Amino acid sequence: MKKIEHIGIAVKNLDDANALFGSLFGVPHYKIEAVESEGVRTSFFETGPNKIELLEATSADSPIAKFLEKKGEGIHHIAFAVDDIEVEIERLTQEGFTVLNKVPKKGADNKLVAFLHPKSTNGVLIELCQDIKP
Amino acid sequence: MKKIEHIGIAVKNLDDANALFGSLFGVPHYKIEAVESEGVRTSFFETGPNKIELLEATSADSPIAKFLEKKGEGIHHIAFAVDDIEVEIERLTQEGFTVLNKVPKKGADNKLVAFLHPKSTNGVLIELCQDIKP
Repeated sequence: MKKIEHIGIAVKNLDDANALFGSLFGVPHYKIEAVESEGVRTSFFETGPNKIELLEATSADSPIAKFLEKKGEGIHHIAFAVDDIEVEIERLTQEGFTVLNKVPKKGADNKLVAFLHPKSTNGVLIELCQDIKP
Repeated sequence: MKKIEHIGIAVKNLDDANALFGSLFGVPHYKIEAVESEGVRTSFFETGPNKIELLEATSADSPIAKFLEKKGEGIHHIAFAVDDIEVEIERLTQEGFTVLNKVPKKGADNKLVAFLHPKSTNGVLIELCQDIKP
């Protein structure tokens, strides 16, 4: 794993959270992107080599809506950048981790992504992500 | 803020978690350090420009023991690297954030640190950290 690609934070209201994190970082978000398949609207901030992704639910049955209901606002997942997501999925499966997406799926920000179940990773929802090559 | 310096993860048993995260990253932790004033034993992993800090409570009244009791294992805080922690404390106080340490304190890994109350940051406990200059 090459670095923390981003940290995903669940928020109730994306516009309010964009203002808050803009004032925290001293720079505004650089894009907003909806991921319809996940029922979320996301925004991204840059902090050096890393990003912060804010996640607002756009439907009541989206994973983020369920997370907010159960746990409230806060950190939702950590995403690590990998060179080859299929190699990592295979390696981590062999190591005994529960990989939720044996076939990576299309995420926000032009990435292929796969998640590890938090039960196998000390309660931390971990995302692997790889740039989609042109 | 220059980058995510580290993510702090609360764990029940540091030795078990070191084995787990070692197999996740494919590389072992590079150090273990106790911070007696905080009642924790920590270990560190490197992932490119970022670190993961595992936190195990060493006393029943430490903040990590209370976190584990209330929320269970999982992500405890995000730490951002800053050049001048006193300037950032002043700026963020002016911006309306609740800075818990107006005077930075000594943290693990040779850092001066200060925390922002999660009530002012969408439920995310944020640490600022600056290298202690020799």
